[in-house]
Amino acid sequence: MITAETLWNDILKIREDAPLVHNITNYVVMNTTANALLAIGASPVMAHAIEEVEEMVGIARSLVINIGTLSSTWILSMEKAAQAAKKRGIPIILDPVGAGATKLRTDTAHKIMMDTSPAVIRGNASEIMALYHIRSITKGVDSSHKTEEALEASIGLAKKYNCVVSVSGEVDIITDGEKIIKIFNGHPMMPKVTGLGCTASALTGAFAAVNPHPLMAAAHAMALMGIAGERAAEISEGPGSLQLHFLDILYQMNESNIKERLKTS
Amino acid sequence: MITAETLWNDILKIREDAPLVHNITNYVVMNTTANALLAIGASPVMAHAIEEVEEMVGIARSLVINIGTLSSTWILSMEKAAQAAKKRGIPIILDPVGAGATKLRTDTAHKIMMDTSPAVIRGNASEIMALYHIRSITKGVDSSHKTEEALEASIGLAKKYNCVVSVSGEVDIITDGEKIIKIFNGHPMMPKVTGLGCTASALTGAFAAVNPHPLMAAAHAMALMGIAGERAAEISEGPGSLQLHFLDILYQMNESNIKERLKTS
Amino acid sequence: MITAETLWNDILKIREDAPLVHNITNYVVMNTTANALLAIGASPVMAHAIEEVEEMVGIARSLVINIGTLSSTWILSMEKAAQAAKKRGIPIILDPVGAGATKLRTDTAHKIMMDTSPAVIRGNASEIMALYHIRSITKGVDSSHKTEEALEASIGLAKKYNCVVSVSGEVDIITDGEKIIKIFNGHPMMPKVTGLGCTASALTGAFAAVNPHPLMAAAHAMALMGIAGERAAEISEGPGSLQLHFLDILYQMNESNIKERLKTS
Repeated sequence: MITAETLWNDILKIREDAPLVHNITNYVVMNTTANALLAIGASPVMAHAIEEVEEMVGIARSLVINIGTLSSTWILSMEKAAQAAKKRGIPIILDPVGAGATKLRTDTAHKIMMDTSPAVIRGNASEIMALYHIRSITKGVDSSHKTEEALEASIGLAKKYNCVVSVSGEVDIITDGEKIIKIFNGHPMMPKVTGLGCTASALTGAFAAVNPHPLMAAAHAMALMGIAGERAAEISEGPGSLQLHFLDILYQMNESNIKERLKTS
Repeated sequence: MITAETLWNDILKIREDAPLVHNITNYVVMNTTANALLAIGASPVMAHAIEEVEEMVGIARSLVINIGTLSSTWILSMEKAAQAAKKRGIPIILDPVGAGATKLRTDTAHKIMMDTSPAVIRGNASEIMALYHIRSITKGVDSSHKTEEALEASIGLAKKYNCVVSVSGEVDIITDGEKIIKIFNGHPMMPKVTGLGCTASALTGAFAAVNPHPLMAAAHAMALMGIAGERAAEISEGPGSLQLHFLDILYQMNESNIKERLKTS
Repeated sequence: MITAETLWNDILKIREDAPLVHNITNYVVMNTTANALLAIGASPVMAHAIEEVEEMVGIARSLVINIGTLSSTWILSMEKAAQAAKKRGIPIILDPVGAGATKLRTDTAHKIMMDTSPAVIRGNASEIMALYHIRSITKGVDSSHKTEEALEASIGLAKKYNCVVSVSGEVDIITDGEKIIKIFNGHPMMPKVTGLGCTASALTGAFAAVNPHPLMAAAHAMALMGIAGERAAEISEGPGSLQLHFLDILYQMNESNIKERLKTS
C-alpha cells in the first residue's frame, strides 16, 4: 500500500511546498511539534484565539486538533476552526489525547468527530478503544493496551466516521475501515519522550497537506516517525538524546534511509 | 535519614508502578517536567480544565501544583484539584514559583497551603522566606538567597502547615519542622537551565506517589536531582547539553551512580 | 555603529546585572526563550495574569511582548503591562509574530505600537511590511520576503512610531529611521528551529535592559544571535543539535568569538 517510494515522494512534496499546518494543540508539545514540522520541511503555525482561527485556517493546508490540555474556551476555538476547515475542504487531523481518562476529553473528541468529519483520527490504543466505547484501561495519556487490541475499535471507528484511524504503538495500525496498513518500525525508548504521539499527529497533518489520500498520508507519517525514531534511539543514551537526534534525522532524511528501514505490510 | 538504598528502592518502585502524576503547572516547564517524569519511570499527565481536574485527580497517585504562570481560571482549577486530592488522600506538592514577587502569587500560595494541606512545599529560598513573611529580596522567579538563610522559615512553615518544606539551592534543605535533611549534591550550572526547580517539584510528586513518608520522598527527589544534575553538568559544555544529559542520566540511573555520589546529612 | 567591543561590553553588563526581563510571550517558545535569557546571563520571568503584570513590570528592567499565540485575555494583559512599562520608563520590545496573517494579530500589534511606544519592534520581513501596510505575502509565522524588501517599511515604521525596527533574515536590518545597521552573521539552518526569532526578541530585551540606546541594544542582540547561530550550525547535524549548541555557545560566548565573527556595516 505504501512503499519507500511513495513515502519519499511525499517528503519531497512537503519540502518543496512547505505547507502551512495549523495546529491547535496542547501546551506540553507545542515546541516539539513545531520543531518536527520545521525539520521535515513544513511550516507550522499555532493559533487558538476564537477571533483568528477561521482566518488562519483560511491560509492553511491542514488543521491538527490535539486535545491534550483542553479547556472550554479552546474547545470553542477547535470547533470553529474545524468547521472552517471542513468548509474549505482541507484535511483535519484529530488527536484525542487522554480520551477515556476524563469525560471532558471523551465528549470533546466525540463532538469533533461527529460535527466535523476528520480525515484522520490519530491516537494510542487506549484512546481509540475508549472512543469506540470498548472498556479500556486508561492511565492518563499513556496507553495501557497494545495496538492489536484496538484493531476492532480502529476499524469500527473508521467505518462509523468514514475516516482513517491511525493507532501508534509497538506496531502501528492505520486503517480506513477496509484496508489495514501496519508499520513495524519504531523503538521502545520512544514513549519515554513526551509528545512523540502528538508529533505523529502533527506530521500526519503535513503529509495530509500534500497527499489527498488520507490512508497513505497517515501511514507515511507513522512510517517516518518509526524510521526516524529507531535511527535516533540507536545512537541515543536516553530520551534526552533521542529527542535531539529525532529532529536531526527528520531534517537529514533521505531516500536510502527509508529504503533500508521501512517495514510495512 | 535517607541512604543510597532508600533512594534506589524508591526509584525501583517508580519504575515498577509508573505512577500517574497529575501536574497543574506552568507553561514554561510543561515539556521538561513531563520528560523528567517519563525518564525516571513515572507517567505524567497535564490537565487544568476545571471540568476535568477532579476526575483526573481520581486516577492519579499524586498532584503537583506549580504557580509559575498563574491566571485566575487556573487558580480555581488548582483549588478544585487540591480539594479532590485532599479528599482522596493523595499527596499534594506545591511549588510556589515567584511567591514574594507579586501579591497574586504570594496570596495564591497561601490560600492553597491553608485550604488543602500540601504534603510538600517545594521552592527556592526567596519563595520560602516570602511565604513565612520574612522580608526577602526577590527577583522574579530566581532566588536571591542561600538556602541556609531560609532555614528558620523552612522549619516555621513546616510546623505551621504540618507539612514538609523542601528548599533547593547550593545545599538543599528538607524539613518536616523537626528533622532536617541536607543534600550537598548539585552543580552551579543547574540554575542556568530553566525549570529545574519545577522539575524537582515534579519528581517530588513521583516519589511521594510511591513513598508514604513525605520527608523521605522530598529528600529522595532532591538527591536524585542533585546527583543527575552534577553528573550531567560534568559532561556538558553549557545549559543546552546539561538539559539533554540530565534526562539521559535520569533514564540510566543505577544504584552504583547513587552510592558513589550521594552526599547527605 | 556597533563593534565587537560594544557588544562584548553589553554582554558583560548582562552577566553582571542579571537584569530581570519580563516576558509576555507565546506558548511555543516560553521554554526556549527563558533558556536563552538564562544562558546569556539575564533573569527571565514569564507572567501574564492581568492581576500581576503591573507588579511584575515594577521589578523588571525590560518588557518583551510577543503576540505568537494571542487571545483576548492576554491582549488585555499585554496592554496593561505595556502601560506600566511606559510609565516606569523601561524599554518595551514588541515581537509582532504573524502580523499580516490575521486581522487579530495585525490589529493587536498596531494597538500596542500606538498606545505604548515600544523601544524596539522586532519581526521578520513579512511582519514588518504588513505593519507598514505594504501588501506582503505571509504564510503564518514564517517570512516570505527578504529583509531588503522590508527596508522601506522598516525605516517608515521606525519614523512613524519613533522607535527602532529590527528585522531578522539572511541579512538583519536594524534602523531607527535614520541610521541603518546591517548584520551579516547567521546560518540558513536557523529558521528550521522554532522560536529563534522570538529568542532574538527576548535577547533584545536583555540588551535593552542594560543599554539605554535601543538601536545599539537591538543590533547587539541580532549580532549575538547570528554569531551564536552560525557557530552552533557549523557543529550541528540538524535543527535538534543546533538548538542545544546555540544555548551552550551563548553561555560560553567570549570576546574573541565575537571579534573573529562579527560582520556588520
